[in-house]
This record gives sequence, C-alpha cells and structure tokens, in this order.
Amino acid sequence: MCQLLGLNANTPTDLVFSFTGFAQRAQEHKDGFGIAFFEGAGVRLFVDHQSATVSPVAQMVQRYPIRSRHILAHIRKATQGVVALENTHPFQRELWGRYWVFAHNGNLVDFHPKLHAAFRPVGSTDSERAFCWLMQELAKNHASLPSVEHLSETLAELLPRITPHGTFNLLLSNGEALWAHCSTHLHYVERRHPFARAQLQDEDLTVDFAAQTTPSDRVAIVVTEPLTRDETWQAMRPQELATFVDGSRVR
Amino acid sequence: MCQLLGLNANTPTDLVFSFTGFAQRAQEHKDGFGIAFFEGAGVRLFVDHQSATVSPVAQMVQRYPIRSRHILAHIRKATQGVVALENTHPFQRELWGRYWVFAHNGNLVDFHPKLHAAFRPVGSTDSERAFCWLMQELAKNHASLPSVEHLSETLAELLPRITPHGTFNLLLSNGEALWAHCSTHLHYVERRHPFARAQLQDEDLTVDFAAQTTPSDRVAIVVTEPLTRDETWQAMRPQELATFVDGSRVR
Repeated sequence: MCQLLGLNANTPTDLVFSFTGFAQRAQEHKDGFGIAFFEGAGVRLFVDHQSATVSPVAQMVQRYPIRSRHILAHIRKATQGVVALENTHPFQRELWGRYWVFAHNGNLVDFHPKLHAAFRPVGSTDSERAFCWLMQELAKNHASLPSVEHLSETLAELLPRITPHGTFNLLLSNGEALWAHCSTHLHYVERRHPFARAQLQDEDLTVDFAAQTTPSDRVAIVVTEPLTRDETWQAMRPQELATFVDGSRVR
Repeated sequence: MCQLLGLNANTPTDLVFSFTGFAQRAQEHKDGFGIAFFEGAGVRLFVDHQSATVSPVAQMVQRYPIRSRHILAHIRKATQGVVALENTHPFQRELWGRYWVFAHNGNLVDFHPKLHAAFRPVGSTDSERAFCWLMQELAKNHASLPSVEHLSETLAELLPRITPHGTFNLLLSNGEALWAHCSTHLHYVERRHPFARAQLQDEDLTVDFAAQTTPSDRVAIVVTEPLTRDETWQAMRPQELATFVDGSRVR
C-alpha cells in the first residue's frame, strides 16, 4: 500500500514537520515519492523514483520550507506499473485553465474505462487511468470551472463508478480545494486556535504550533495513518468524500 | 529577453557543466527559472520564481547530476505576465499519452488565438497561449502520436501562423526529439567523438568531455548564446526549425 498526505490551509503553510514524519514511512514504501505544492494557480511538482528516505529531491523538500495552501504528497509501494518516473504520483493535468493534482492509494482491478477525450495516461498504472477518466468526466459535466460545491457533487456521482474495482483512497486538488475519498484508510485533523504541541508518531520530534501560527490560521492535514500522537485525528469512513477549503472541512 | 537551453543526447547525460554557465546568466534574467528532465516517458519539472542564482531548487539541480536524454531549461526576464509560478517556463501538457515540454524566448504581440479545445493557459503569458495553441493544432492534425518526421512537418506548417506576431525562439520536446525554432538568437553544438576540452564563457571552468564520455556518445546542446569558448557553435537562421534526435540534428 502507498501512503498519502495532503494539506489544505487558509494561509501559506510549510509541511516540513509533517513531511519529516511521513518520509520516515518511505522505508517500507520505497518505490518512489512525489509532492506537489500549489502557489497561486502554479504548481511545483517534485517526483523521484527513489525512496523519500534517500532521494536528494526529498532532502531538499525537507530543508527548504516551501509555503503553500495546497500540498499533496505520496510515497509509493508499487502494485501496478513498473518503478519508473512516469508511474510516480502525484499526477498532474490541466483542465479549464487550472492545474489538477491527483494521488491514489489502493489497487483497481479490471479498471479500463473508455478514454476517448483529451486525457491519456503516460505511464501504466491503474491510478493514472482513473485520474484521466475523472478529468474526462469532469470536463464532460462542466463547460468551465464550476464552484467547489458543484465539483464535490460531480465527484460524488463519479466515484461510485470507480470504487467497485477496488481500493480507492484518493487525494485531489486544483489549488482551490482538497478532495479526499476514503476506501479503507484516511485520517484528518483540523488544526486551529488554540494551537498546541504535537509529537510525531515516527520520530522523536515535537513541534509547538502555537509558536508558528497566528490565531486566525486554519490547517487541515489528511493522511493515510495519523502522524502525531497527541492530536485528535478523525478516521474517515469507507466511501466517504470530504472537501477541505481554507483549512476546514466543508459540511 | 529570456534565455533557453536544451539538451538532446543518445545516452543519459547530465547537464551540470552547461547549467552552471547558464545559471550565471540569471543575474540579468532574475524573474524565475525552470528545467525539465525526461526520464523515459516521465518528466521531472523544477520551476521557481526566484532567480537561478539564489534558488535552492537551482542549487539542487547543480549538485544532483540528473542524467537525461532530453533536457529543457529557461531563465526568465518577464515581458508579459507577472512574476509568478504559473508564468514560469518550461510549461508542460499531455498529448497522445506523452508529456510535452515547451519554453519560449521572445515576445508575441496581439497573439490571441482561438482556444476551443482541451488546452487552456493557466497563467497569463503570451508563451503559454502559444504552447496551448500548438498542442491544440497538433491534436487536430494527428489522431495519435505521429513519427518525429511528421511532427516536424506539422510544426513547420504551424509556426508561420505564430511568428508574424513577434519573436518566437522556441524549444519543444516530447522525450523523443528536441525541436528548436529560431527567430533571432539560437545556437547549437553537436558533441561527438573525438571529444575535446571546453571552457565556459561565463565562468572560469573547464571540462574534459573525453574523460566523461564513450566514443559512441552524441550530445547536442541548443542555447540562446554559445556557452563555451572553444567549440564550434552553429548560429541558426531566422525562421529556421531544427529537429534533434539521438544527439544529432536530423537533416
């Protein structure tokens, strides 16, 4: 199984603390890693088919605090597709003049949808096929960029056409919102005032968020398994779709 | 004016020497930089709206010798579009299940083509508009990935519809070939056996290619202005389109 990590915030936030814990898990998930940072409408996408524990790219990401309101990361343990750069998540496409970034944890069996439009996989993973199909169907449903609410509704209609094929834990962002779909394992925490201290599960490292934030900051973190010991992580239910905007879950 | 740098080779080759000279020129071209490395069908695209002289991403690229057969780099001096990540070259799109990477030097005036298909600009540059239009027109001309020769023919037909709008020095690659179109300034060198020593124009740095290569290696470098003092650089003519495959210009 791969591991997913997403951040959605109302102010540009760095992911150094969370990524440090997350990268530790790459010892078991060593078939590549990737991380995408939105900056306005632009995206920096770093991918490497080396493990996040040894990749010079991952080391740069840990040392260089890139601040972003929308971040999406993935460490890969290959199930389908060889270990190669073109099979490394997150994947990126452009739709309606915005970049979309997608990462998947799970395994889809016999998922070969008809791809007749402008989105074709470059690599050989089930994940990229599912992403291309989602982009194609979103494009068919809306002539131009719809509201986040309408996008959530369309995704809720489309996802049940993928999920019968297998596990589909998903993170998706267009730089406006973060969508998370749970099949088996996804947890989230919403950090807000009053901020407390948190200790990483995987490393002996503690951060005092109060010292790094202002009272109006809001940050949501979505991850396969909880990253910290002393925060209240919400476990998502199977087939649950969550939308995060400005660091909070939209109800 | 921005500056372009492209590499096409018959064996994975690192660009550390050439990029070191190229990045020096970023002192005058400080509105961002970007570099794309193909690895098979996959692409690593590093972009930063900081100057290549100070960007931690550029420093990593200089220290970490990523080997690739197709590399495309750009340092930006903004003419159109604000200094922002979404306006930083190279730009990337997917067409026919392959990634395409594009960088432009120049300025297009009153170029607002009809973009009615699947390729829309995310940023506000004339360059990204031209790239989206080229992708749209290539997609209209060919139902699936054509040969490099046919792509060169189609590009030769399309480019005269852009060039009346202004300067259009262009580098384009799909991981199979490198296309270079000259309006004003582009030079190339084809390095092959017997390899010699070369000294950078911009830095007191010499490299002995003979020590780093095998007799069968072939490497073509395309750049705005020659990078070295002691090699034979070919100046491209206005409106000339060159195609490079396996480190050699295709005639």
